[in-house]
Amino acid sequence: MKRGSLQMAKLVFIRHGQSEWNLSNQFTGWVDVDLSEEGVKQAQNAGKLLKESGILFDQAYTSVLTRAIKTLHYALEGADQLWIPETKTWRLNERHYGALQGLNKKETAEKYGDEQVHIWRRSYDTLPPLLKATDEGSAANDRRYANLDPRIIPGGENLKVTLERVIPFWEDEIAPKLLDGKNVIIAAHGNSLRALTKYIENISDADIMDVEMTTGEPVVYDLDKDLNVVSKKKLN
Amino acid sequence: MKRGSLQMAKLVFIRHGQSEWNLSNQFTGWVDVDLSEEGVKQAQNAGKLLKESGILFDQAYTSVLTRAIKTLHYALEGADQLWIPETKTWRLNERHYGALQGLNKKETAEKYGDEQVHIWRRSYDTLPPLLKATDEGSAANDRRYANLDPRIIPGGENLKVTLERVIPFWEDEIAPKLLDGKNVIIAAHGNSLRALTKYIENISDADIMDVEMTTGEPVVYDLDKDLNVVSKKKLN
Repeated sequence: MKRGSLQMAKLVFIRHGQSEWNLSNQFTGWVDVDLSEEGVKQAQNAGKLLKESGILFDQAYTSVLTRAIKTLHYALEGADQLWIPETKTWRLNERHYGALQGLNKKETAEKYGDEQVHIWRRSYDTLPPLLKATDEGSAANDRRYANLDPRIIPGGENLKVTLERVIPFWEDEIAPKLLDGKNVIIAAHGNSLRALTKYIENISDADIMDVEMTTGEPVVYDLDKDLNVVSKKKLN
Repeated sequence: MKRGSLQMAKLVFIRHGQSEWNLSNQFTGWVDVDLSEEGVKQAQNAGKLLKESGILFDQAYTSVLTRAIKTLHYALEGADQLWIPETKTWRLNERHYGALQGLNKKETAEKYGDEQVHIWRRSYDTLPPLLKATDEGSAANDRRYANLDPRIIPGGENLKVTLERVIPFWEDEIAPKLLDGKNVIIAAHGNSLRALTKYIENISDADIMDVEMTTGEPVVYDLDKDLNVVSKKKLN
């Protein structure tokens, strides 16, 4: 079957609302912190904006981290579409922040210097200090990753590595739905969404680190039959 | 591969908490009403009970109706397991109440007589007055059933018909998981859970109508390798 020439799909990104550790200024990564009260309000507001947009979704994707899952649920409930199929995957998780997870960002800057912390946060391909599988906070000890080949459980990621594990899910799950004309919503994290943004907008390694994903403001793409971006707008 | 002789799985049922129409005493069926405030509290309490039970789930199932989906989400969140895979299916929906949907139960009894309403509510195989596909409230006009063969969209169901569309999902999706030793949670409705209860406990047509599913109290089954019930208890 040839691809239809008029077929178009909508793809919506939502970065989770403010979390408790956004508030306390800690490196979060794969640590499963909850939304703050403000984060809940942001997610509910995203639901209102989606309802006003009139977009009818066919499929939802999110990570296995509570703050993204709850954001999705509040948003879908606000849009009267809590019933659509939902798939959760570790591949949409936030960037793993390695041994920095749980540390206060300001204290870390005082200890290692602003320059080093800036590199850890903003370099495309510099890894943070890594966690070992035997370390207490390692994802290897978390039941939600028990079905993964231990060799792919990260001890820390940069955006490059994050992108390399996000894109297979795009290729295998998300893109086929969009090519089939289905409207898709993805509730995820600053860096997993940045990885997807880089990929679908073809943004350079240097430029992507300056792209900010605003919390709780849905980003709506219209994609053509070859998944090129026809339009992009933020709902707010 | 032979079935393991020691393998045992846990199966948990939760009937959704009180809904807005439970409160207003209306026939609900497939109408997508929300939980009441009390219903939210019941679902959150179920989450606490599940957390205390220490049961670790592998898979969640629910219907495509908001009151069951939200009950599942509150319960899983309370049990710190919001991240487990979740599948929604129309096959776990409440019994479709046909043309009675939306009517007040007391007014319906005044109009048709207590005896007739009792039969509609408690007979195993008497159908309610049916909705036609062209009627405004028909599920045929609801996007969430758009992928179904129109011939299987009900205009009204009794418990017998409900059971007949619930059990294929049990056979194809739920039972294989349990046979694989996975722990399963199902958040659903009075009658879809009654259908499953009848099936796994082998209860007669006459007796099943007297089995009450309490809202918000998880029912925990231990099942052996042949899916026979080894034990059953309510958490409360």
